[in-house]
Amino acid sequence: MINHRIAQILKTGQPEENLTVKGWVRTKRELKGFAFLELNDGSSLANLQVVINQDLPDYEAILKQINTGGSVEVTGVLVASQGKGQRIELKADTVKVYGDADPETYPLQKKRHSFEFLRTIAHLRGRTNSFGAVFRVRNACATAIHQFFQQRGFLWVHTPIITASDCEGAGELFSVTNFNLKNVPKTENQEIDYSQDFFSKPAYLTVSGQLEAEIMAMAFTNVYTFGPTFRAENSNTSRHLAEFWMVEPEMAFCDLDGDMDLAEEFLKYIFKYVMETCPEDMEFFNDRIDKTVLETANNIINNQFERLTYTEAVKLLEKADVKFDYPVSWGADLQSEHERYLAEQLFKKPVIVTDYPAQIKAFYMRLSDDEKTVRAMDILAPKIGEIIGGSQREERLDVLEKRVLAQGMKTEDLWWYLDLRRYGTVPHAGFGLGFERLVQFMTGMGNIRDVIPFPRTPQSAEF
Amino acid sequence: MINHRIAQILKTGQPEENLTVKGWVRTKRELKGFAFLELNDGSSLANLQVVINQDLPDYEAILKQINTGGSVEVTGVLVASQGKGQRIELKADTVKVYGDADPETYPLQKKRHSFEFLRTIAHLRGRTNSFGAVFRVRNACATAIHQFFQQRGFLWVHTPIITASDCEGAGELFSVTNFNLKNVPKTENQEIDYSQDFFSKPAYLTVSGQLEAEIMAMAFTNVYTFGPTFRAENSNTSRHLAEFWMVEPEMAFCDLDGDMDLAEEFLKYIFKYVMETCPEDMEFFNDRIDKTVLETANNIINNQFERLTYTEAVKLLEKADVKFDYPVSWGADLQSEHERYLAEQLFKKPVIVTDYPAQIKAFYMRLSDDEKTVRAMDILAPKIGEIIGGSQREERLDVLEKRVLAQGMKTEDLWWYLDLRRYGTVPHAGFGLGFERLVQFMTGMGNIRDVIPFPRTPQSAEF
Repeated sequence: MINHRIAQILKTGQPEENLTVKGWVRTKRELKGFAFLELNDGSSLANLQVVINQDLPDYEAILKQINTGGSVEVTGVLVASQGKGQRIELKADTVKVYGDADPETYPLQKKRHSFEFLRTIAHLRGRTNSFGAVFRVRNACATAIHQFFQQRGFLWVHTPIITASDCEGAGELFSVTNFNLKNVPKTENQEIDYSQDFFSKPAYLTVSGQLEAEIMAMAFTNVYTFGPTFRAENSNTSRHLAEFWMVEPEMAFCDLDGDMDLAEEFLKYIFKYVMETCPEDMEFFNDRIDKTVLETANNIINNQFERLTYTEAVKLLEKADVKFDYPVSWGADLQSEHERYLAEQLFKKPVIVTDYPAQIKAFYMRLSDDEKTVRAMDILAPKIGEIIGGSQREERLDVLEKRVLAQGMKTEDLWWYLDLRRYGTVPHAGFGLGFERLVQFMTGMGNIRDVIPFPRTPQSAEF
Repeated sequence: MINHRIAQILKTGQPEENLTVKGWVRTKRELKGFAFLELNDGSSLANLQVVINQDLPDYEAILKQINTGGSVEVTGVLVASQGKGQRIELKADTVKVYGDADPETYPLQKKRHSFEFLRTIAHLRGRTNSFGAVFRVRNACATAIHQFFQQRGFLWVHTPIITASDCEGAGELFSVTNFNLKNVPKTENQEIDYSQDFFSKPAYLTVSGQLEAEIMAMAFTNVYTFGPTFRAENSNTSRHLAEFWMVEPEMAFCDLDGDMDLAEEFLKYIFKYVMETCPEDMEFFNDRIDKTVLETANNIINNQFERLTYTEAVKLLEKADVKFDYPVSWGADLQSEHERYLAEQLFKKPVIVTDYPAQIKAFYMRLSDDEKTVRAMDILAPKIGEIIGGSQREERLDVLEKRVLAQGMKTEDLWWYLDLRRYGTVPHAGFGLGFERLVQFMTGMGNIRDVIPFPRTPQSAEF
């Protein structure tokens, strides 16, 4: 059942080996007396070159059936390649054509296509060099994430996608309902009659699994989520998706220092893993997509991240010999230009900024003794900007209740979250990583829609 | 940052080792001159016994603060245990109390609680023996699934959660919208004006990633999904969830035999992995939850699965010396009682039934030459019933188009799915596994709501 995969053949195949390969034809070149096929099965960027000699029975008929995009099975023997560009090639003894691809209509002909066009044929774009590389690297990133946490005894926890709590109060939530939208039931007072909906109350798609991950950390110490999250934000940018995957570790008995240590180790691990397991794809990105991809990865792997407080960062930005579009002043959030100045110009390596003003951060972040800042941290990387955001959580019931109320939320709605502080509360911390942002930065792809198989964005839910 | 975890200490800790542990107190026993704490940090079913001697400064005050559910940090030295039930215990030199838990209100006192009650406090139930074991085994299952596929060169692909296609036509879909439900915009004809919704068309939560996984298999050969799926089915049973995780591998250049081979290898791998990595938890389930848990697991691991066609199965059922509630006749779907008879009574091991009547199976399954059956397979396991369903997919464009139309669907809506048969089509196959069903069967838990951290069911989307 397990076929010979082309990646393996190219790596370890030896002359005189007999084998069968199956894949899709990238190109066909007919010469006098023989023909070359470039065959790809998605296991690697490089194709396997197949040589078909005119001695093959039905040579003409078979070649006629084979076009770019067609699928074939070739049995033959490996031989050392005469041509340049490959170590070995496959001399065909038999060729079976599974499916053809009409050259008049098959959209992926040899010429280069724009990423915009390829998005309209997302069901075929995985067959191109760029998207083959993207989705192999995406898989490697995902695997690295699981390995990293599992090796360290973290449990993967599945936090709910459908949620009745709108805790972050963002108003950027998708509603989930099984109402007939043409005729939403109303109560006598003309309010929506949620008692007739599936969950008997308003329900939404989650924007984060953090609060539920905190629940699990209060029983299992170290956990992480890795699942889809949603924003109904009408942002048609190259960095926003309505549906994206997030990674959110949460650690009990951990403070902000431990959180930063883990986040730094985590980023280094993933970049290193991908560089080691997908070197050919990473070279491809560096050559064809963004000349700084390898430099950025090595910068993350090889440098100790700089750590400084928000207050220190503001001082450095105020002193900077650079004209920013947005003014810098204590209390205002850092803009992308500020973050990039710190990471790219000043420190030339990843920077962790900590202890942000409380009023610009979420209610669950731990208030410091100065009562002005919270134990938050953002990791800023050169060429990338913010890649991770995290915090130590507020574990003191009285302080948390005050912050909940101050933000106009109701403590009743968060009864279970507050219970965690009522029963066996402990210092704990965690962070969040947007998975597609990571893959985007790792590959240098300019648009986030090109690092997820089927992007969901305003007015687009195709495939 | 990485603390000593109790699982590791219990396994490899040696007398005279000095260390610090952090966890939650399961019980406290005060004796004359000293006290015992049972400490748990979620890493194992077993607790670490801590001995606190009255010589400890502030002995009385500290003990008073410590109750079941409280969180502590203990530094001390390991000593061989005098008591039975544990090899070693920790003699405390210092004890720090992080958080207490009022014995008057903390719901998890020593007495046994019903699973129904514990569902109402899902934010605390992970701290019980049963749910500790469930979520460790759930994590082990999930890890085994990724390992199995990654070792075999399958890519993990993230298929979309939000989808505009209602291909299976089930009518059990949740709608996703950012309309204000109180005032859904209408067109002049009083139809819903979807042009004003986020995706400019009706959108739903996915019921399966299979069709999109087929897209990815047509570029990468072997892929799998592992993500959440949804059913808006109003089923208040012990086997249904509105939100659950599914695993769906898809293999190009693969027929039904290859599909069955992979599925059998896959199930054996997961059960074996969990038996090896969570032996203590599995023993617990066998002792406390279901006395057949280990037997069922070993039956799956150690037997070659029986393979027979639906037609053969019907003949055997017709001959069976058993009175069924539902009659057996060729063309009707097998009922749970039939499936269990085959697996438990007749073969006493897992059974794969293949080649079901076309009219009771989905449009995408490959039609056989008899034109009456499709190349479908279901795996039935003793005590479990159906655990996997799969098929070889219809790869012939003309046959597929006929089946799409016969089921009242429109070929235009499936243009991209049909394109896969138009351009380089290949024989391919896959299967689906309901992840919570697997965990339920593995642990013997009677209700599927007790194997997912925060279950979503009719009228319930708490936490």
